[in-house]
Amino acid sequence: MSKNSKIKDDCFALPKGIDWCPVDTALEKLKNGLSILPKEKFIPSEKSLDFIISQPIYALISNPNFSNSAVDGYGFHCENLSDENRFTLLPKVAYAGTNFVDIVPHNYAIRIMTGAKLPKGVNTVVLNEDVTLNNDQIFFRGKLEKGSNTRLAGEDVKKGDLLFNKGHRIKTQDLALLVAAGVKYISVYEPLKVGILSTGDEILDSSIDIKKLSEGMIFDCNRPLLSSLLSKWGCEIIDLGVEKDNYDKLKYKLNYASKKCDVLLTSGGASSGNADFLSQMIKDEGKLFEWRIAIKPGRPLSLGLWNKMPIFGLPGNPVAAFVCTLLFFYPSMSLMGGAGWREPVKFQVPSNFIKKKRAGRKEYLRARINNNGMIDVFKSEGSGRISGLSWSSGLVELSEEAMEINKGDRVNFIAYSSYGI
Amino acid sequence: MSKNSKIKDDCFALPKGIDWCPVDTALEKLKNGLSILPKEKFIPSEKSLDFIISQPIYALISNPNFSNSAVDGYGFHCENLSDENRFTLLPKVAYAGTNFVDIVPHNYAIRIMTGAKLPKGVNTVVLNEDVTLNNDQIFFRGKLEKGSNTRLAGEDVKKGDLLFNKGHRIKTQDLALLVAAGVKYISVYEPLKVGILSTGDEILDSSIDIKKLSEGMIFDCNRPLLSSLLSKWGCEIIDLGVEKDNYDKLKYKLNYASKKCDVLLTSGGASSGNADFLSQMIKDEGKLFEWRIAIKPGRPLSLGLWNKMPIFGLPGNPVAAFVCTLLFFYPSMSLMGGAGWREPVKFQVPSNFIKKKRAGRKEYLRARINNNGMIDVFKSEGSGRISGLSWSSGLVELSEEAMEINKGDRVNFIAYSSYGI
Repeated sequence: MSKNSKIKDDCFALPKGIDWCPVDTALEKLKNGLSILPKEKFIPSEKSLDFIISQPIYALISNPNFSNSAVDGYGFHCENLSDENRFTLLPKVAYAGTNFVDIVPHNYAIRIMTGAKLPKGVNTVVLNEDVTLNNDQIFFRGKLEKGSNTRLAGEDVKKGDLLFNKGHRIKTQDLALLVAAGVKYISVYEPLKVGILSTGDEILDSSIDIKKLSEGMIFDCNRPLLSSLLSKWGCEIIDLGVEKDNYDKLKYKLNYASKKCDVLLTSGGASSGNADFLSQMIKDEGKLFEWRIAIKPGRPLSLGLWNKMPIFGLPGNPVAAFVCTLLFFYPSMSLMGGAGWREPVKFQVPSNFIKKKRAGRKEYLRARINNNGMIDVFKSEGSGRISGLSWSSGLVELSEEAMEINKGDRVNFIAYSSYGI
Repeated sequence: MSKNSKIKDDCFALPKGIDWCPVDTALEKLKNGLSILPKEKFIPSEKSLDFIISQPIYALISNPNFSNSAVDGYGFHCENLSDENRFTLLPKVAYAGTNFVDIVPHNYAIRIMTGAKLPKGVNTVVLNEDVTLNNDQIFFRGKLEKGSNTRLAGEDVKKGDLLFNKGHRIKTQDLALLVAAGVKYISVYEPLKVGILSTGDEILDSSIDIKKLSEGMIFDCNRPLLSSLLSKWGCEIIDLGVEKDNYDKLKYKLNYASKKCDVLLTSGGASSGNADFLSQMIKDEGKLFEWRIAIKPGRPLSLGLWNKMPIFGLPGNPVAAFVCTLLFFYPSMSLMGGAGWREPVKFQVPSNFIKKKRAGRKEYLRARINNNGMIDVFKSEGSGRISGLSWSSGLVELSEEAMEINKGDRVNFIAYSSYGI
């Protein structure tokens, strides 16, 4: 379970001969190279929302746990009903949770409320409104099927049934099933510990006052962005702040990170310019793999190992950092965190735009669905346009081939909500 | 801003003559009857994820705040380039954040890194790889357009531009824009305070040991379910526990809730059976509106007012409670919380199932998308099947008309992720 035993030194090495690496090859490589990093722990199931389970979960009780009435009505034994049916009403009422009635003889019926346990002898319930009541007699017409308006013990889940397999991430609705099946404690993976570090001489922490924003400097958008994404994804965030391009300080941070984090996300310093201290340092003292991925927006994605801790080196540009985080880090994080490789659902939605695209790269356009259910794309593809992230509600994915998109053509749309954000 | 001034006594009254109320009429009525409940407060923008803003937000600085290079390359002044271009290289380098170069004369060029401020005289950058370097001369062919590979000050957002309007809910990617635009504090609505209360003599708190689950009793699935939904939606949860059908105790809880909560979600006691203490009490001492909504799954939705606090009375059945919460409470909560009425996106997805449906009700089927991009539906439509909630990733919505669905027909699919869960 420890990262030292699982991560191979070459987990990020691309096959030989790849220069511009297609997106799908990059994803396949990550999928095959990475492994689960956190330890397991035992937690109360009601606190388990968004945790990833590390052991299969089985039902401890059946759901329903006893056969009961699905409606307010009259319960009786039904084998072969005729067209006209008459039962003698017992003077008792079967309420949910109280006043249990032991047994109802044949040809007798009993008033029964939604959720009340079926007394012995009752296998069918007729709705209040379908019955004519006359003193202690009830009467109704029609052949009600045996079992109507009842919920049989275990019809949903039987004691011992597998509820969730290892690797499942607990969703809101799963909490209801865990309760119904009597599961109070579950084994989960600890949240993935993700370090975030922004680098660059021009970067200032976003909390610093505007007045101190000196010439040529910019605020760090990436840590607030990444930390909000990671919080949505249930990761534990280790904020390593902003670091200038200073060899000793960066080295200290990387060493510190490799002790505290399962994985590190850096931004900035991922291009191949002179000023890219971080890439150079990882190359010199760790392992660095620069993937030239055929993608727009995107710069080379730097993947590295530092004391066996995987590093995802994101572009400094927030738009490219955001897109790369969704495309490459989201499924990787899911795998490293124990939930297996997960890619989002893509929907085919008619386009409301026109575009010609050359062959070569996969392109991701900031997009949203308009009131006519069609896809609009953001006015600019420029990756400096941070406002386009807020404007959009997802990405249009255009494959590597050359193509001409006309209005009404269906295109692949990935809603940001598919990433749980 | 206080609830006492806004909620009208009849906000839940349906128009006369409606018996079975269509889903859309119910939604329209909620949309028109409800109003914003919480107060405003001022918070640091980096802590604002999922908050709803209560005042428009404007950019305090431009993004980018200064014109800069989008790549690592060579910067120069470009007016009319010829087919072959030659510049004399200055011996300085413009790095991001450091070593500013004041001015670059015409016919001179300077090495410039990504993010570095454009020196005076530079309006265009050519990529490293497009240039031939010869001592202090750089040379390249081709007509580069003026402004290439640069990002102009304010090209994304100008100081003073409106970033977000009142009612916008802050998403992960919005945090990057707030930082880039220098916005440190924002006005938001306090989280909506939502009380949750489960009622019924048969209901036991889910934390109680299985061994204490006596005959005819069931664990409360609804509070864990609702509380996880509300936490995803950024609400403040006031857990009012489980209450038996005891008049005095329920009345005490309702009075307490009306002091602490903006709105109350109850489950159980929403049908019209004898044992429905809660509905009866709200009818007697508050206001009760029972909406017979033409929907499956669903029972009458009880809407009430208690000391002017709105009450949404959900069915006790967790499947029906879940569906009603998504369909009716989600947009209502969004409106009451300040974000305006929000309904989820519906995608048209080809069905992998066959179904005949009679006219009358809207139907919601638990569904998910299979590996072929088609919709599978859960094996049972029974609302006792809690496991179907976990199995599904969304709902198929079938409109009121009679219809026959064949494989390949496109149906409306609402992903649970569209509800932010």
